[in-house]
Amino acid sequence: MTVAAPIIWKDSKLWLLDQRLLPQQEVLVECQTLEHVYVAIRDMAVRGAPCIGFSAIYGLALWLKNQSKFSLGDFIAAATYLRGARPTAVNLMFEIDRVTASVKATFGDLSPVQTVFEFVLKDAHAQMDASQKKNTLMAETALAELTDLYGTRKLTLMTHCNTGFLACGTLGTALGVISHAHAKNRVEMVFADETRPYMQGSRLTAYELGKEGIPYQLVVEGAASYLFTHRKVDAIFVGADRIAANGDTANKVGTSTLAIVAKHFGVPFYVVAPLSSFDFNTDSGKQIEIELRHEEEILAYQGIRVAPPGARALNPSFDVTSAEHITGIICELGLVKHPTTDSMKVLRRGL
Amino acid sequence: MTVAAPIIWKDSKLWLLDQRLLPQQEVLVECQTLEHVYVAIRDMAVRGAPCIGFSAIYGLALWLKNQSKFSLGDFIAAATYLRGARPTAVNLMFEIDRVTASVKATFGDLSPVQTVFEFVLKDAHAQMDASQKKNTLMAETALAELTDLYGTRKLTLMTHCNTGFLACGTLGTALGVISHAHAKNRVEMVFADETRPYMQGSRLTAYELGKEGIPYQLVVEGAASYLFTHRKVDAIFVGADRIAANGDTANKVGTSTLAIVAKHFGVPFYVVAPLSSFDFNTDSGKQIEIELRHEEEILAYQGIRVAPPGARALNPSFDVTSAEHITGIICELGLVKHPTTDSMKVLRRGL
Repeated sequence: MTVAAPIIWKDSKLWLLDQRLLPQQEVLVECQTLEHVYVAIRDMAVRGAPCIGFSAIYGLALWLKNQSKFSLGDFIAAATYLRGARPTAVNLMFEIDRVTASVKATFGDLSPVQTVFEFVLKDAHAQMDASQKKNTLMAETALAELTDLYGTRKLTLMTHCNTGFLACGTLGTALGVISHAHAKNRVEMVFADETRPYMQGSRLTAYELGKEGIPYQLVVEGAASYLFTHRKVDAIFVGADRIAANGDTANKVGTSTLAIVAKHFGVPFYVVAPLSSFDFNTDSGKQIEIELRHEEEILAYQGIRVAPPGARALNPSFDVTSAEHITGIICELGLVKHPTTDSMKVLRRGL
Repeated sequence: MTVAAPIIWKDSKLWLLDQRLLPQQEVLVECQTLEHVYVAIRDMAVRGAPCIGFSAIYGLALWLKNQSKFSLGDFIAAATYLRGARPTAVNLMFEIDRVTASVKATFGDLSPVQTVFEFVLKDAHAQMDASQKKNTLMAETALAELTDLYGTRKLTLMTHCNTGFLACGTLGTALGVISHAHAKNRVEMVFADETRPYMQGSRLTAYELGKEGIPYQLVVEGAASYLFTHRKVDAIFVGADRIAANGDTANKVGTSTLAIVAKHFGVPFYVVAPLSSFDFNTDSGKQIEIELRHEEEILAYQGIRVAPPGARALNPSFDVTSAEHITGIICELGLVKHPTTDSMKVLRRGL
């Protein structure tokens, strides 16, 4: 893997790739203290739900490393402090709560701080390893499906937004499929769309593909119909923010638009996401509320005004892709083809 | 009409709205000579095929105004010079050739230069008047169709790219429909998409809608599916660069993608274009070649690099919307619903 890793534990420090400066500069942020990690999370040097979660555990390990003796009360206070770095990041809360419960159940104020430090550090490594294994399983499932469809020839694949190494810390989901297929010498070309308004495709996915030496071209999202008419795209892979019980999938805005056009042209369209993104308590996408983001993301680019003074914009952050437009959903348990409430039931056993 | 007119003849001078500075600044370029017009066309202060054509005729009128006597040879030399301003602009050539032929047929070296000047100036005014009349006819046809569909209630309309006053010099085509409907108090809301990569929607359509006081919101193109799911869009109007005999329509990239998604959601989708855009010698869209433009348009915005060094992009300028995704095509002769090679034949009589 030639991609600059976004999270590295080395020389008893945490090094975070500053994702705000990508793709123009590769700068590692050196974190020696919990406070350093807090600032990196708060100021979004680190992004992507999995990356934020992993960083938080390493942050607590750093805190323990810097203590002369262990106090459970102080540990809980440190954890509470870290929760404040990004109060709306669900994965941050989840990982902090999980590791706190685990420490609480295992240690007391008489425990040697070095032992607690090693326990939390090992937990952080283990979480990243488990994520890498899940990602690899999903990528293998996807590649087996592509081999079923097309044999072992080289493929032209497409993706939307950024779901790779940078977001996940490990192989990634949809972009992980592409990296894995490339590692197996199965990728001819990748089309990545820009992903307006935040340009995750142009900035981050292009960066990762370039780093791995995978041939790619960026396209504007409006070019989907042109692309499927004039180029042979073998399959599209996207990630998911939340998958309802019937397979309807909330993901970055533009996903559903792409899926509808793909279905019209008969291009297979796959969602790749770990079981933790599945929400069986939500019957269908109709129940998923879509957050509207700042209009300014559409009206200006990096401080340069695009639209006229007084312009307004409607900026949904996500959309819901109807299950009818999804060829298959891939998670660490395998592939559900043509997802429906019935065919998705098999996955509930894995939860 | 409160929009700053892009072409004004006033005080015996031509004033062109500098479209390079829109939407942030409204600056009129004063043209007193043919050379001034040449530079304005060459450097794209004026844009849009109709606007360029009208400017050229006014440019020749200015040349005549500045002569002490008329020489047909010199006039032809001036016309040849002006053709060089944008050698690939078909409409520029067409208008210069038309007015040159007309002058040649009517005048000789003994003609008083003031008479020839008045003739050419009258021709320029007449061309703009005729365009305005065609645009109005198309807008009336579209509004009648909307009234058939929805009665006289206020409507939510959508458009792509920029096809209004700024491009056409007169009412415009697709955006002209929206302006006209607004003038008749029939517009509730307009959604305009950004139109990547060149942002004609965010920069120009937003400017025109704002100037006319029409309520609007900009959306990214990926938001089409979200929009049709969460908002009631009554109809979409787009322009055309070229319409084949079967109704397949080449237009700004993103048009076909939008049309496919609109059809999926049952949103009526109309193409609005004058007969001069129809090409009955082209059987279908399959025969229309799509120009690929500079990758840089996608990789950077106004000099700010978005994509990483070494990134590549595929940048088709147009796409072809299949006739099956078009609810109707509107020209100055009327509306052809569900266009096919057969149903389009009625228009050939108008050519």
